[in-house]
Amino acid sequence: ADARAGRQKITACQACHGLDGLSKNPEAPNLAGQIEGYLVKALMEYKSGTRKNESMNIVTKDLSDQDLADMAAYYSSIEIDVLPP
Amino acid sequence: ADARAGRQKITACQACHGLDGLSKNPEAPNLAGQIEGYLVKALMEYKSGTRKNESMNIVTKDLSDQDLADMAAYYSSIEIDVLPP
Repeated sequence: ADARAGRQKITACQACHGLDGLSKNPEAPNLAGQIEGYLVKALMEYKSGTRKNESMNIVTKDLSDQDLADMAAYYSSIEIDVLPP
Repeated sequence: ADARAGRQKITACQACHGLDGLSKNPEAPNLAGQIEGYLVKALMEYKSGTRKNESMNIVTKDLSDQDLADMAAYYSSIEIDVLPP
């Protein structure tokens, strides 16, 4: 998967998840630095309908597995720092 | 919801999600700084079985809505910094 290609494919994602991977919408999760395999699985489940979310089911429906993998790679590649509790 | 109480309730969560909210398991997502309402919804869906994941369906089954809300508050309260792409 290609994070650089993914960055060019996230036009539909940005309104809710940001270019920086931080949520812009109280129903949308942050994606910055998220585990890549988790994101791929989530996207594949949204595409197949196994996981239900109206917006996500619609936006993933016509995307290729390669597109989904590249998008996951992009968001996962964003570096995050955590301030330990 | 009470993040401080939540910190005392995440014993079962830590092996995969960490006390710091960073994944310790390639199948588990980071939770640090995640949107609180998103986490609550995810936990409620795992508890009801609407969202399928064997481990999460088991661990949420006997937890109260208050426990789930407190746990979500704890993980959401962890501060994160994102390095802009």
